[in-house]
Amino acid sequence: MSRERDEAFMRLAIARARRAGVVDRSGGPFGAVIVRGGEVLADEGNTVTRDRDPTAHAEVNAIRAACRRLGTHELAGATLYASSECCPMCYAAARWARIGKIFYAAAWTDYGDLFDDLDIHADIVRSHPERRLAPERILADEARVVWEEFRLLPGGARY
Amino acid sequence: MSRERDEAFMRLAIARARRAGVVDRSGGPFGAVIVRGGEVLADEGNTVTRDRDPTAHAEVNAIRAACRRLGTHELAGATLYASSECCPMCYAAARWARIGKIFYAAAWTDYGDLFDDLDIHADIVRSHPERRLAPERILADEARVVWEEFRLLPGGARY
Repeated sequence: MSRERDEAFMRLAIARARRAGVVDRSGGPFGAVIVRGGEVLADEGNTVTRDRDPTAHAEVNAIRAACRRLGTHELAGATLYASSECCPMCYAAARWARIGKIFYAAAWTDYGDLFDDLDIHADIVRSHPERRLAPERILADEARVVWEEFRLLPGGARY
Repeated sequence: MSRERDEAFMRLAIARARRAGVVDRSGGPFGAVIVRGGEVLADEGNTVTRDRDPTAHAEVNAIRAACRRLGTHELAGATLYASSECCPMCYAAARWARIGKIFYAAAWTDYGDLFDDLDIHADIVRSHPERRLAPERILADEARVVWEEFRLLPGGARY
């Protein structure tokens, strides 16, 4: 897959992040796209608050949607484009789904100290499992813009 | 909560594991129970194969069910009883849900080399995030019996 195509899919994930966090406000500004053989299998945002489901991160939603679409619990050969660095839940979900490649745009450190204040989340944010898939970072600046927009919303920075 | 009550809830989780893996065969032999204030909020098994959902581990199913029941995305003050040691996906899901205490029975090492053969899973199994909640182990022997029963099924040891 060419870098141009990877960037196009990531832009879709970033647009999905903006929709989730800023437009629909279904949850935090996080989006995920799953692609296999050039086909978009799923395109989902975070819906934690709308669905009242703490597992409804964009990546988990996208994995579940792609599996529903294909009628399978395995997505071998698929690529995940995540607008943000996957948390351990999402990273492990991608591994269980046999996703073979992960791209991400924003990194946890881009969020400044938001997560540092939340002791209950700190071990999730700081202690990734070994990342055998070696997620690759692209379009960091474009993702950061969405985060800033979200952070400045009245009542924003809720995730 | 007394040790007797913790063991009673864990026996429920182990029975749920047996039902998922051996009776209903909805997925692997894994069960999870979520309790708060002495009330069972959720009691779920693994449904990965039945639901064709790689995220449908018992713990994730139980977290989602408890949240649906309460109409919330947070389960602060709840305890998770997992028939097996949580994988990083489930551990992180419990953290995002603000679960405050985890008990488990079977450990990954009880499964022998089953997971070792699967390179694609090895980093999940071996590289837990830092476990700030310090899950506590009880009833290991009772959980091991279910695993053995599952492993000896014709076509078993599928998870």
